[in-house]
Amino acid sequence: MLQSKLFSKTQREDPREEESVNAKLLIRAGYVDKTMAGVYAFLPLGWRVISKIAGIIRKEMEAVGGEEILMPTLQPKKNWETTGRYDTYDTLFKFQSFYTKTDYVLGPTHEEIVSPLISRFVSSYKDLPVYVFQIQNKFRDEKRSKSGLLRGREFLMKDLYSFHADEKELEKFYEKVSRAYVKIFRLAGIGKITYLTYASGGDFSKYSHEFQTITPAGEDVIYLCEKCKVAVNREIIDDLHGACPVCGNKNLKEEKAIEVGNIFKLKTRFSSAFGLKFAGADSRDGDVLMGCYGIGLNRLMGTIVEVSHDDKGIIWPESVAPFKFHIIELKKGKGRKLYEELVKSGAEVLYDDRDSTAGEKFADADLIGIPWRLVVSDKTGEKVEIKKRGENKSKIVSYGFVRQLL
Amino acid sequence: MLQSKLFSKTQREDPREEESVNAKLLIRAGYVDKTMAGVYAFLPLGWRVISKIAGIIRKEMEAVGGEEILMPTLQPKKNWETTGRYDTYDTLFKFQSFYTKTDYVLGPTHEEIVSPLISRFVSSYKDLPVYVFQIQNKFRDEKRSKSGLLRGREFLMKDLYSFHADEKELEKFYEKVSRAYVKIFRLAGIGKITYLTYASGGDFSKYSHEFQTITPAGEDVIYLCEKCKVAVNREIIDDLHGACPVCGNKNLKEEKAIEVGNIFKLKTRFSSAFGLKFAGADSRDGDVLMGCYGIGLNRLMGTIVEVSHDDKGIIWPESVAPFKFHIIELKKGKGRKLYEELVKSGAEVLYDDRDSTAGEKFADADLIGIPWRLVVSDKTGEKVEIKKRGENKSKIVSYGFVRQLL
Repeated sequence: MLQSKLFSKTQREDPREEESVNAKLLIRAGYVDKTMAGVYAFLPLGWRVISKIAGIIRKEMEAVGGEEILMPTLQPKKNWETTGRYDTYDTLFKFQSFYTKTDYVLGPTHEEIVSPLISRFVSSYKDLPVYVFQIQNKFRDEKRSKSGLLRGREFLMKDLYSFHADEKELEKFYEKVSRAYVKIFRLAGIGKITYLTYASGGDFSKYSHEFQTITPAGEDVIYLCEKCKVAVNREIIDDLHGACPVCGNKNLKEEKAIEVGNIFKLKTRFSSAFGLKFAGADSRDGDVLMGCYGIGLNRLMGTIVEVSHDDKGIIWPESVAPFKFHIIELKKGKGRKLYEELVKSGAEVLYDDRDSTAGEKFADADLIGIPWRLVVSDKTGEKVEIKKRGENKSKIVSYGFVRQLL
Repeated sequence: MLQSKLFSKTQREDPREEESVNAKLLIRAGYVDKTMAGVYAFLPLGWRVISKIAGIIRKEMEAVGGEEILMPTLQPKKNWETTGRYDTYDTLFKFQSFYTKTDYVLGPTHEEIVSPLISRFVSSYKDLPVYVFQIQNKFRDEKRSKSGLLRGREFLMKDLYSFHADEKELEKFYEKVSRAYVKIFRLAGIGKITYLTYASGGDFSKYSHEFQTITPAGEDVIYLCEKCKVAVNREIIDDLHGACPVCGNKNLKEEKAIEVGNIFKLKTRFSSAFGLKFAGADSRDGDVLMGCYGIGLNRLMGTIVEVSHDDKGIIWPESVAPFKFHIIELKKGKGRKLYEELVKSGAEVLYDDRDSTAGEKFADADLIGIPWRLVVSDKTGEKVEIKKRGENKSKIVSYGFVRQLL
């Protein structure tokens, strides 16, 4: 893409009213625009990152057997009354139609929709298991929203729901999704600092599990067992007498962290409310067992920025970067040949063809954070100066060398 | 995909509370599930159709130079007050945060968001033109919702907005998008019965243009000039004294039709409200000229069903069908070899591997409406019986023949 055609522009100054590093950098670099507190628009660069993240997640959800669907944002009040959460779920946006007086809830999660939906298709154990997922907007009436993309009032989320005839199958699938999550966070470049974390299981399970990424920007506190590479959320550390639930180690390390994913055995919490039953092989009815598994895409994008930046800007992992290469030409037209060659080879390239100074171009490249910076000038001749974002050393290489990075 | 793994099932009976053909067939065939009046969930088959439609639209929007973004659903009341539409736009969902008392509008369209957004990046004529689009959920508090996917309270829409320094450029881009729309509706299989239609231009333009697809299910009435292949919306036919605006022909044919797309010159209606100005080459300020261009994805999907079905079910055009091939095996396991060969060749195949009767399988295939039905049985041996949905004659062909259809 020609940078001169990109309508978004970088900003030198931090935006007002933003405290978080992720929002400051993403706004300054032109990835997002703040519509109002807790609500952001994704600009072309940001939409590319979101699409990459969605692609990574979608592939792994399909690999565990998930069928993709799309459920609505508008949810009927009565479904929330059926589960008793209409008055207890504390971030519900509630409103009414002017004409029909129908009472709506703006979906913060989709158990109240997916449970009756699946009940219309499941009657026998032969219809189970079912795994469905969607990537869709969620809405939460948050009291405060100061963490940029980490906690928004509107955000994209992948939510997967599973439906089982027996506990063993639920357990097996739960473990499978847990491994898929490990892979997703590794592919998104935060695998090494993201830990499976034991958290409260609510009414029906001993534990649920979160995936927590260690960073000072985190709102959560976790206790890390460096031996087992698992952690415990502060909310249950006392119940565990301060010990690792795997090995009993009491020498845990306190860290701040961001919850980038969670997996939860809902068991019969929602199926019993909606009469989601199945006839077993022995003809006896049973409530369907459920699991739910979430990853917030906005939050994952914000987390990557929190843990991968320097004082000059963002440092994207290649897997989620908006482009792989950023060509900087220091003489008008000098970059075109390399741009065309790389695009022809199938590479994603941002080509800075603007009439800006070298200083402005370098500063923008650091701020935007594309993995490979390729400088072409009179000095580089038929070659190119290549530098990896986040590293200091550059070297002069041939166009052929660059193509080998594809 | 194995049909035994698809959680959605077909229904023999029409759903209650649905009057429209599109909703009846889409629900019976397992494409959508009705959450409540005017609100539908897309099931795996339906999501595949929506993804195909989105793919066709996205490609053409990129071809005219559109940059993809994603704007939020939550919109601040004050932006709607700025344009004076808070009290006049008659399908606005309005509500308030419980905690912050912020007043929100649920976006039925995005002029109130995109205009201030673009104003933050445009200052000079050199920053123009800008073309941005998104594929995103819209919300409208409709008084009635009886037309299935044709008029929902929540629906996916592609909206493109253009920003120009002068009228000539706006005019040129408007014509370009008009041609892109013709292509989109042709690719979606409804080109021959979809007409460019003159409609009211509102306060600032003589005309806007709609794309109207002729069908008895339509809510609009248009007057068709068969000579020019254009139409006039009833709302302005009197202003035109019943004559074709292109050739003056007064012998127009009245038809019912569905508006599947519209393009509109907004001129300075929104830019002046939000102070979206630019410094011209002569240094004088001017208001940016705008255009907007919409296509409803749910409505397009519903329209295709309205105009392409028979008494047995849906007849999908290949371009938007959930799968290209539907393998029906009449003996357990007989279809696997063909399925694996086709998938390996990159084909999209639904493989009916269920333990159902031949009659049930044929009825389901007709209802679901995948373009090519491939029957394998003991009778077909190493060959396959192929039939196009909507045609009566079938023939026995080799697997190699089928692969050539790819």
